Amino acid sequence: MTNPRQVAVVGVTGYTGFELARLLLRHPEVRNPVFYVRETNGAKCLAELFPQLRGLGEAPLRTLSLDAIKQSGAGTAFLATPHEASAEIAPALVEAGIRVVDLSGAFRFRSAETFQSWYKLPAPRANWLGEAIYGLPELYAAEIAKARLIANPGCYATSVVLALRPLSEANWIAEGSRVICDCKSGASGAGKEPRRDLQFVEVDENFKAYNLFSHRHTPEILDHTGLPENRLIFSTHLLPLARGILSTIYVHLNRDMNASEVESCFREFYSGKRWVRVFPSPNLPQIQFSLHTNYCDLGFCLAEDGRRLVLISCLDNLLKGAAGQAVQNMNLMYGWNEEEGLQ
Amino acid sequence: MTNPRQVAVVGVTGYTGFELARLLLRHPEVRNPVFYVRETNGAKCLAELFPQLRGLGEAPLRTLSLDAIKQSGAGTAFLATPHEASAEIAPALVEAGIRVVDLSGAFRFRSAETFQSWYKLPAPRANWLGEAIYGLPELYAAEIAKARLIANPGCYATSVVLALRPLSEANWIAEGSRVICDCKSGASGAGKEPRRDLQFVEVDENFKAYNLFSHRHTPEILDHTGLPENRLIFSTHLLPLARGILSTIYVHLNRDMNASEVESCFREFYSGKRWVRVFPSPNLPQIQFSLHTNYCDLGFCLAEDGRRLVLISCLDNLLKGAAGQAVQNMNLMYGWNEEEGLQ
Amino acid sequence: MTNPRQVAVVGVTGYTGFELARLLLRHPEVRNPVFYVRETNGAKCLAELFPQLRGLGEAPLRTLSLDAIKQSGAGTAFLATPHEASAEIAPALVEAGIRVVDLSGAFRFRSAETFQSWYKLPAPRANWLGEAIYGLPELYAAEIAKARLIANPGCYATSVVLALRPLSEANWIAEGSRVICDCKSGASGAGKEPRRDLQFVEVDENFKAYNLFSHRHTPEILDHTGLPENRLIFSTHLLPLARGILSTIYVHLNRDMNASEVESCFREFYSGKRWVRVFPSPNLPQIQFSLHTNYCDLGFCLAEDGRRLVLISCLDNLLKGAAGQAVQNMNLMYGWNEEEGLQ
Amino acid sequence: MTNPRQVAVVGVTGYTGFELARLLLRHPEVRNPVFYVRETNGAKCLAELFPQLRGLGEAPLRTLSLDAIKQSGAGTAFLATPHEASAEIAPALVEAGIRVVDLSGAFRFRSAETFQSWYKLPAPRANWLGEAIYGLPELYAAEIAKARLIANPGCYATSVVLALRPLSEANWIAEGSRVICDCKSGASGAGKEPRRDLQFVEVDENFKAYNLFSHRHTPEILDHTGLPENRLIFSTHLLPLARGILSTIYVHLNRDMNASEVESCFREFYSGKRWVRVFPSPNLPQIQFSLHTNYCDLGFCLAEDGRRLVLISCLDNLLKGAAGQAVQNMNLMYGWNEEEGLQ
Repeated sequence: MTNPRQVAVVGVTGYTGFELARLLLRHPEVRNPVFYVRETNGAKCLAELFPQLRGLGEAPLRTLSLDAIKQSGAGTAFLATPHEASAEIAPALVEAGIRVVDLSGAFRFRSAETFQSWYKLPAPRANWLGEAIYGLPELYAAEIAKARLIANPGCYATSVVLALRPLSEANWIAEGSRVICDCKSGASGAGKEPRRDLQFVEVDENFKAYNLFSHRHTPEILDHTGLPENRLIFSTHLLPLARGILSTIYVHLNRDMNASEVESCFREFYSGKRWVRVFPSPNLPQIQFSLHTNYCDLGFCLAEDGRRLVLISCLDNLLKGAAGQAVQNMNLMYGWNEEEGLQ
Repeated sequence: MTNPRQVAVVGVTGYTGFELARLLLRHPEVRNPVFYVRETNGAKCLAELFPQLRGLGEAPLRTLSLDAIKQSGAGTAFLATPHEASAEIAPALVEAGIRVVDLSGAFRFRSAETFQSWYKLPAPRANWLGEAIYGLPELYAAEIAKARLIANPGCYATSVVLALRPLSEANWIAEGSRVICDCKSGASGAGKEPRRDLQFVEVDENFKAYNLFSHRHTPEILDHTGLPENRLIFSTHLLPLARGILSTIYVHLNRDMNASEVESCFREFYSGKRWVRVFPSPNLPQIQFSLHTNYCDLGFCLAEDGRRLVLISCLDNLLKGAAGQAVQNMNLMYGWNEEEGLQ
Repeated sequence: MTNPRQVAVVGVTGYTGFELARLLLRHPEVRNPVFYVRETNGAKCLAELFPQLRGLGEAPLRTLSLDAIKQSGAGTAFLATPHEASAEIAPALVEAGIRVVDLSGAFRFRSAETFQSWYKLPAPRANWLGEAIYGLPELYAAEIAKARLIANPGCYATSVVLALRPLSEANWIAEGSRVICDCKSGASGAGKEPRRDLQFVEVDENFKAYNLFSHRHTPEILDHTGLPENRLIFSTHLLPLARGILSTIYVHLNRDMNASEVESCFREFYSGKRWVRVFPSPNLPQIQFSLHTNYCDLGFCLAEDGRRLVLISCLDNLLKGAAGQAVQNMNLMYGWNEEEGLQ
Repeated sequence: MTNPRQVAVVGVTGYTGFELARLLLRHPEVRNPVFYVRETNGAKCLAELFPQLRGLGEAPLRTLSLDAIKQSGAGTAFLATPHEASAEIAPALVEAGIRVVDLSGAFRFRSAETFQSWYKLPAPRANWLGEAIYGLPELYAAEIAKARLIANPGCYATSVVLALRPLSEANWIAEGSRVICDCKSGASGAGKEPRRDLQFVEVDENFKAYNLFSHRHTPEILDHTGLPENRLIFSTHLLPLARGILSTIYVHLNRDMNASEVESCFREFYSGKRWVRVFPSPNLPQIQFSLHTNYCDLGFCLAEDGRRLVLISCLDNLLKGAAGQAVQNMNLMYGWNEEEGLQ
C-alpha cells in the first residue's frame, strides 16, 4: 500500500535536491521523507551531507534502489536526477503505482525527436512522453491533479511562459513579429558539478551570454506559447549572483494599448493564482523580491506608442523554477492547499 | 600661452574623475596635471582624497576657479562635472583658448529641445551645441582632431552605437523592424553620490531593469544610428558588479546572411581601429575581457535562418565608456598615438 | 486590556524591522501585528513599502503614536528604532503595561556612564537600565520569562558571548591572557541609511577593518564574559556580502586539553538549547550554514599543544543577531515553544 | 648565449601565470617573452587562451620542453608551475645558466624535512634548497641581486612577514606572547583548477575559515619573523571576492608605546622601499587600495594602554603576493629600477 504523504526524494546532492529537502522536511502534509543518493559514502542522514540542515529533523539518507523505494510505501517520488537517470527511473516507479514528479528535462516534450535533437540523448519511450503532464500549475492544474507523471518545467521556461501566455491567449502579439526573451540567471541554475567556467573567479564581476539559439529550454517555450521557432529569440546570460532569474521580454502588440489594459489582461489571467504576482505599472519586479519564495513576479512597461511592450518576469530558479514548483504540483496532485509547505 | 601637454581636470571626486586622474598621471605626453574640485577641505593633493593613489606621483588638488585654470597655462581641460556645471564651465574655458573634453551630457545633442526634454535642465546656448563634436573616435576622428569642445559620449551609447553602426551603414537592418538593445551595467555607472537604491545590500544578489523608455542616452543612440524613435527599444539593467557594460542587441536582417559575412562587415568597418576588437564567431565577449581596458569588444551570433542576429557589445563603463575615451579623444586632438596612456 | 498575541512593531523601515515583519506575519501565536513608522507617506500597508511582502497577508501600516499603540490593545511591542527613540518610547509603553523588546542599544547596560561614553548620547533613566533584562535567551531564560523590558543584544555581542561563555564559566581561559575576537560582518549590519562608504562600489570586492578598539558592542562583551577591558581585543570588519557574521576568537587555555574535552564543554553548556549548534571537530561553521536561520553555530580548532584554541562562531546578524532573537525572547516571555515562528 | 631581457614563462594557464604574462608583455626591459604550457592544444599564441589579451602584442605559446627553453637564449625563466614540476625544472634550467624565479613552494625552505612535512611531497635536493634565495625584496635585496634561483614567497607569508618584521627587529614583541595572524584572502589564491568548494555558489555570500594550524605558509612566517611555532597562530579565511588579502595581526608590545612611535618604526624600516606604503594612523589600508598594484599597504591601531597593537596588512595576492613580486625580484636581479613594469 502506498501513502501519498510518504515521500521519496531521489538525487538530493545538487542545489535543487537540497531545496526540495528543505521544503519537504517542513511540509505539513508530508511524513518522514526518505532521501536517496547514488552513493551515501557512509552518511546516514542528510545533515551529514549538509551541515545547514542540522536541527531540521530526521532525514534518513539511503543508497538508491528502486526496490527499496517501492517497498517503502512511498506514494510520491521526486526525481532531482540527471535526464538519463530520470528517463529510466520514472517509468519503473509509475508502473509500481508511485506518482512521480520529475525535475529533469526527460519528459517535458511530447516528441521524442525534439528531446533527442536538443538533449543529444536517447529519448524515453513514446508512451511515457504522452503520459507525462507538463507541470506548470497556473496553466494545467486540472491535468496535474490527475497525473501519474509530472514533468516539472525548466526554470527559464517557467519565467518566459508565464509572462507570455496571457498575451498569446488574448491574441495581442503582432502577427509575424518576433518575440525576444532576454533572460538572465544566477549561477545555481548551472548545477553543482565543478566546472572551470563556474568557479568563483570566473563568474564574480563578470557577465556573459551563453547558449544563444541553442538553449534546451527553447522547445518548452515554443510548445507552451505557441510561437513558431523563427519568431522567438531566446537568449540566456549568467549573472554574478547565486540564485534568481529575471527575463526581459520584448513584444510588439497588434493594436494600440494603454497600461491599464495590459495590467488587466495579466490580472484577469492570473486571478486566483496564489503564486503569480502582477505588479501595477510603473512598479517592476526585481530579483530580490521573489528570492527564497515560490512567486513568479510579473511587471511591464509600455512605450508611449502603445505598441512596444517590455515585460519583466522574476522568480527564484531553485523554487518556482524547480523545487517549489515541484511541491506546488504535489499539492495539486493531492488536492492540498496550493501554498502548503511553500510559505 | 597655453600648453597642450598641461592639463586641468575639473571634478575629480567621482568614479569617472578618479579614473581620469589615474590615466593622466601616467600619460607619457601629459605634464603635471592639476586637479580641481569644488571643495578641497584642506586637502593639498589627490592622494589625501584617494589613499590608493599614494605613490603615483605629484597630483596637486585645488579649489575650482576658472581664473586659476586660465592662468595655469593649461591647454586642455577635462570636465567630469555634472551637466549643469559643464554647461557653464565649458564655454568659458573654450573662449579662453582652452580645448575642452566634457564628460557630462551637456553638449551631446545638436538640439536644445532634445537636451531639455531628456535632462529636464536648461540647455547650453545653441552656438555651443553646434560647436561641440560628439567624441566617438571610431566614427568622427577627423572632426575630433580639430575640435575645440568635445562631448564625450555616454557609456551605454558608446556600447550600442559601436555595435549598430556597421550594420546601419551597410544598410542591412530590415526596414521597419525594431532594434532591441538590452543593456546591463555595473553600479559605478550610477555615480558616487550616496543613494539608498545603490547601497550594497540593495544591489548585491539583485538585478533589475530601470529607466525603461526614459534613459537619457536614448537620443544619442538615435542620432548616431539613424534609427527613428519608434524602432528602437533601449532598456537598461543594474548588474551586481562594480564596473562593465554588456549590451545584447537584437537586429533583424533584410536578407539571409551567414556568419562570415557578418564578421567581415564588422572587421572591415573597424579595420585599423585600435580600441575595437571584433570577436570571431562563435566566440563572444564577456564583461571580464574588457574590464580595466579601453576596448569595446564586439561579437555576434546569427540564427540558422540567417536573419535573426544577436550582437554582444562589452566595455568598461569608466574607461571606453568615459575616462578612457576622453583620453583617446585628447590623443586624436593633438595627433598623438591613439593608444598613448591607455595600454 | 492588553493581549500578548497582539503585537505592535515600531520602526519597520530598516533591515531589522523588515525581518521582524516577516517573522511576525508568520508567527502562529501572533494575531494581526500592526506596524508603526515615523512617516507613512500615505502608505496603508507594509507591502506598499516592501514589494516582496505582497501576498504575505494583512499588515497595516500606521504613523507612530504612543497613544495609538496603547489603545490598540497590544500586549507586546518591538522597537526597531534608533537608540534615542527607544530610550523615550520603551519606558512609556512599559508604564502602560505593554511588554517591550527593544532592539536598539539603549537598555543594554546597567550603567548610564557606560552608555554615555560609548554611545555619546544621554542615557535612559537609571531605574529603566536596572529594570531591563539582557535578552540572550541561552544565558538568561528565567529572567527573560518575567521581564517587562528586554534589551535585545547586539549582533556581534551575541556571536562572541555565546562562543566565550562556556569557557569562561568552566574557568579554562589562561589567567592574564588576552582574548582576541576578530569579527566579520555583512553590510546589512550597518543599517539602511544611505552612506557613501556603504555604496555598492565601495563594499564590493573590498574588505576592511573598522572601529578598532571603539565598537559599541565592546561593553556588552565585557559584561557578559566577565573579561576586563585590557584583556579583550575586539575588532570588526566589513565583508562584501549582505548578511551574516563570522567571529574568529582566539583563546589561550590554562591547561592542556584535547578536542573532545573542548567539544564536551560546549555540548554540555548548550544541551537542550534549540538555537545553538555545536559542530563536531574538525567541522567548522561557515556563514552560509546559518544564513536565514536563527541558529548560532559554534565550532573550534585546537592546536597540537592543547593550549592555542580558535573558536568559530557564525550567525545571521538580522536573525539570531537581531529580529530572530527578539522573537525568541517573546516566545520565552509568554512560555511559548522557543522555536515558534523561527523554523 | 643567454640574454637577460629574453624571458621564458612556464605554466601560464593559472591566475598567477596570466598576471605574469600581462606584466611581462608590458615590461620595458623585456623583449618577446615566450610562454610554455604542458599542452598548447593547437593554440599558437596566448590570446587564443585568454581573449582579454588580444591586442596586447605578440605572445607565442609553446609546448613545454626544457631543451627548447635552453636553446631559446632566454636568460631568465619564471616558473608558475606546481611544486612538483618546479622541483624538477628549476635545477635543470639553473644548471644551463638560466636564472630562475620560481613561484611555487618548492624552494622556500632551507630544510627538506620542513618541506616534506608541510607539503607531503618529496623535497628538492638539499643543495638546491641551500642555493635558493627567499625572494622578499624589502628584506633580502642584496642576496636577490646575485641569486641564480629565487623562491618567490607565498602570498599570505608576504603579507604577514612585511607587517611583523619591523617589530621583531626592533624587539618590541612581548616575550612569550602569542602573535595572532587572522588572514583573509580572495578566491584566486586557491588557483584555477575546478573544485566544488570554489564554485561560485559556494563562495558567494559565504565566508569561512580553512586550514587552521595547517596552512603551508606557516613555516615561511616562522622562518622570517623568528617566532617559535607555539607563539604563532596563523589562520586563513576565504573572502567572497576574486583577489586581495587583508591580514589583521595582533601583537602584544613589551612596553607602553604611542602611535607615533609605532608609525616611526614602520616608516624607518621601509624608508626607500618603493612597494611598501605605511599608512598614518588612524588611516587603515583596505583591500581595494592595493588591488591591481604591487603595493603592500601597512597600517595599525594601538589601544589606549599602549600595549595591544593591531596591524593591518593588505596586498593583491596575484601581484605583490605572486607575479608582481616575481617581476620586482627580476628587476633587482638585473639592477633595473625596482618599479619597472609594475606601475
